[in-house]
Amino acid sequence: MLIFTEQELKQYVKLNLEAISTVEDGFTKLANNEVEMPPIMRVDIHDQNGEVDVKTAYVKRKDMFAIKVSSGFFNNYKLGLPSGNGLMMLISTQTGIPQALLLDNGYLTEIRTAAAGAIAANYLARKKIETVGVIGAGSQARFQVKALKLVRDFTKIIVYARSTDKAKKYAEEMTSELGIDVQVVDSAEQVVRNSDLVITTTPAKEPIIKAEWLHPGLHITAMGSDAEHKQELEAEVLARADKLVCDTKAQCARLGELHHALDSGVLTLDSSIIELGQLTAKKVIGRENEEQITVCDLTGTGVQDTAIALFAYNEMVKRNMGLNVENKTFELKN
Amino acid sequence: MLIFTEQELKQYVKLNLEAISTVEDGFTKLANNEVEMPPIMRVDIHDQNGEVDVKTAYVKRKDMFAIKVSSGFFNNYKLGLPSGNGLMMLISTQTGIPQALLLDNGYLTEIRTAAAGAIAANYLARKKIETVGVIGAGSQARFQVKALKLVRDFTKIIVYARSTDKAKKYAEEMTSELGIDVQVVDSAEQVVRNSDLVITTTPAKEPIIKAEWLHPGLHITAMGSDAEHKQELEAEVLARADKLVCDTKAQCARLGELHHALDSGVLTLDSSIIELGQLTAKKVIGRENEEQITVCDLTGTGVQDTAIALFAYNEMVKRNMGLNVENKTFELKN
Repeated sequence: MLIFTEQELKQYVKLNLEAISTVEDGFTKLANNEVEMPPIMRVDIHDQNGEVDVKTAYVKRKDMFAIKVSSGFFNNYKLGLPSGNGLMMLISTQTGIPQALLLDNGYLTEIRTAAAGAIAANYLARKKIETVGVIGAGSQARFQVKALKLVRDFTKIIVYARSTDKAKKYAEEMTSELGIDVQVVDSAEQVVRNSDLVITTTPAKEPIIKAEWLHPGLHITAMGSDAEHKQELEAEVLARADKLVCDTKAQCARLGELHHALDSGVLTLDSSIIELGQLTAKKVIGRENEEQITVCDLTGTGVQDTAIALFAYNEMVKRNMGLNVENKTFELKN
Repeated sequence: MLIFTEQELKQYVKLNLEAISTVEDGFTKLANNEVEMPPIMRVDIHDQNGEVDVKTAYVKRKDMFAIKVSSGFFNNYKLGLPSGNGLMMLISTQTGIPQALLLDNGYLTEIRTAAAGAIAANYLARKKIETVGVIGAGSQARFQVKALKLVRDFTKIIVYARSTDKAKKYAEEMTSELGIDVQVVDSAEQVVRNSDLVITTTPAKEPIIKAEWLHPGLHITAMGSDAEHKQELEAEVLARADKLVCDTKAQCARLGELHHALDSGVLTLDSSIIELGQLTAKKVIGRENEEQITVCDLTGTGVQDTAIALFAYNEMVKRNMGLNVENKTFELKN
């Protein structure tokens, strides 16, 4: 069994067009019924304000599939630790024998989540955009704009976060990394009203974006909500969208923005809801004109994890990386 | 992160009374609502005749909990490989950070499954038994009788398996290991009619044990069925039991013998069904006299996995075993 550490993975597995393309291929296969993806397993550690999710998907004809364990422990900041953590493992689809452990501490999840954002933008945002709005200033707010830059040119970022200090730090970093103008603004409203494309990346439990701020041509990707109690968009935002896209309808109906729109009754499961894979598989068309308002609800899927884990494995193995741990398989007794 | 291999684990983690007691404690805590245990996650790899299960449970106040991945690939014999495989990981319940990987290839699952059998026997079988009947001659058929020997004295084993060769090999091995008389018989009926306690350990998809063979005082532990399509006991066997016990009612109703008894209508969810933890927590009494017929349906639970993984971890750490893999945690950016 090969073991890869976060340090090695960060060195060789990059957020690039190939990573995006491998995740896109996963969504396409999902839409083509070539993926076996069970519902997320979740353990709540209520007394520590923690949660652990397990995600997986088997993509037909791939020789391995991933199981990902990711945790969010929201008191970790008191210990000076990040809240997110986790690892992925790759298992042979021929024998069931574990082949590799990717001790990425959440790095590959950042990559595959940002990749989904770029894919959504590529099918749903206007071809020409100028200003990108970002709500939230954490790690994924960084990855999302870097991924977006691979599929869209833009000249300006405006950012809003509850903590002005974090927003300022974000602006400094992104200015230096992307070489473009990044401005901190005072409200989510300013972000939405002045952007061509908005990305929400917060763990909000109350909606941050109001429907009345929407304007023609806007695209929104909301990637924050991945649990029943999380919500970034007013339900009415989803109802107002000309194209509403979910990474998977079933999962968004349980854990995403869609969940709240269904709960409040502004949408029903019979509403026109597109899955991201239907766009990438070219079964459904994305944005059709400059005026449409488009919204994509991302909760994070196992097929993204299998796609990125296989991508990472190949990147590492071709460089002869990894610690090989000898692990005799169980003797065949009978 | 500490990594333990199968070889090391087999050397220091033994099927003994302490292992049984730690699993028993897990069941007790489950009955006392001190365990968070989500439903099993399952991925089917139909085109390879394979399946992968993920089980987990958080036992309150424990500093780690386990996530177990176990696979069954039923074409592996063609490659000279065992069908079962898997690993466990331990995750901190304080921070969500993975602490240890137990690359046991299914060994710890064998231990904790046999432990559950011994616990069931201890509460449900007559105190004095002479003959133990075993149906199936695989790995778990060995572990089950070894675990049973720790809680009951018996002088004879009779075994039946579809393959007479395997049954003979089993008889030879068990005679030499336990120093008692082990006889191969020609049918499941002979096993059931002539035993005080019967253990079924097969992947049968059709019932092997008929209700008409039951006799006063008999205890049966059926540990084979852990999926919808598996069944070792005729549904009527469960209905005839004076005490019917499940490792968990919910899981057995989905994956165990109980599933078929409910399906066929011989039992309902309102029937008197005891959970194993209710026995160990002394909330419900087990066998009350020499005449009762008792049946225990085991599907395998996440709480057993967490219990045995913590037990194994302690056994290993106190001997300074394990490979320590440095794995820097994600930098705290904000």
